[in-house]
Amino acid sequence: MSRVEVETKVLNENQILAEQLRERYRQQGILCVNLISAPGSGKTLLLEKTLERMDQGTRVAVLTGDLQTENDAQRLARFGFPVKQIVTGGTCHLDARMVEKHLADWNLENIELLIVENVGNLVCPSSYDLGEDAKIVLLSTTEGEDKPLKYPSIFFKSELMILTKIDLLPYVPFKSDVAKENARRVHPQMEILEVSNTTGEGLDAWMNWITGRQRKAKEKAKLVRA
Amino acid sequence: MSRVEVETKVLNENQILAEQLRERYRQQGILCVNLISAPGSGKTLLLEKTLERMDQGTRVAVLTGDLQTENDAQRLARFGFPVKQIVTGGTCHLDARMVEKHLADWNLENIELLIVENVGNLVCPSSYDLGEDAKIVLLSTTEGEDKPLKYPSIFFKSELMILTKIDLLPYVPFKSDVAKENARRVHPQMEILEVSNTTGEGLDAWMNWITGRQRKAKEKAKLVRA
Repeated sequence: MSRVEVETKVLNENQILAEQLRERYRQQGILCVNLISAPGSGKTLLLEKTLERMDQGTRVAVLTGDLQTENDAQRLARFGFPVKQIVTGGTCHLDARMVEKHLADWNLENIELLIVENVGNLVCPSSYDLGEDAKIVLLSTTEGEDKPLKYPSIFFKSELMILTKIDLLPYVPFKSDVAKENARRVHPQMEILEVSNTTGEGLDAWMNWITGRQRKAKEKAKLVRA
Repeated sequence: MSRVEVETKVLNENQILAEQLRERYRQQGILCVNLISAPGSGKTLLLEKTLERMDQGTRVAVLTGDLQTENDAQRLARFGFPVKQIVTGGTCHLDARMVEKHLADWNLENIELLIVENVGNLVCPSSYDLGEDAKIVLLSTTEGEDKPLKYPSIFFKSELMILTKIDLLPYVPFKSDVAKENARRVHPQMEILEVSNTTGEGLDAWMNWITGRQRKAKEKAKLVRA
């Protein structure tokens, strides 16, 4: 029992901080999305393709999490937008405290889209609210169709599933229809996009998804100020 | 500080149980291996190919872990060897208690090779000793070469790395040499095998690796009894 109680307390502390972050984002009209997937599903490559397509005037910033290395921040920094690496030093997920700490010297007024790339892990990140507007889960075509059933929590909590690496479909036994059906068994209302970071297929739909959500975040911010 | 102390205590409790399991395996001459990887790297498919190649007289048993579903146990049971699913119900790793509990109604005298397939997660399983002789980490060619640097703990603790999905090398930007170099930066003595579960390439070397390790486990058992 004591183990469960401690975990609950830690999560509650995280939840309080996450709500404070959410409120700050809402006041500033910032859209914050939290990208979660298994290691190697293509989160960083999707972000590279996303930043590449963004107008240099876009007020986008990225926090990217890993247990070790600054590799991802280096990959993403070359697009000219503010990027910071969160090195967790072994911790299997990002938490709201880490996000808050790494936001400290950024002026939130200069940000309208904050993309958080979580540690590559389909399990633990699903338990930690980062104050985001939406969790987004990536599943790649090389991973097997039953992942939504095996890791239901993250698929249940994500508003959007992005099926990545669809260019590899001719070479793998993956059945997209089965994967989507499994995802909707866990989360019937989940939106689903299919993307190839290699060929660019599906990237327009992804950019439109973000733009649509940003519009909503700004409308919410106007209501707050009114 | 209190969070760290609790974690230490939980790990110690696990360690005691793991050592008890290790001693039981040693007395019986059982080789126990603990397969760890990201979700979708091919652990279950490798086990299917492994069991398929085994003589029906082989005293092999499998424990396979997942957060939810009995899918993997069903896939593996059709080869006629004893298989049990450990459903963790959300927990991100297997621990020694789960292994002990699921072994309870098996006669260990009838087992000479126990394969434990951990939850698909490159982070948390590395912290939990299951009493195994060797941890084995799988990395697939679709995941990126820098994973050993980003998730160093599991690559440091594994005796063997199996590079899977090498049949996909023509279609992905993955450089095997770089991945192997990164793995050896973290763990210079690590053995490395390259395998395709689809074409069968490398499976002989893997079966030989197991056979060699089983021989050693039996020799150790003889020393214990003498």
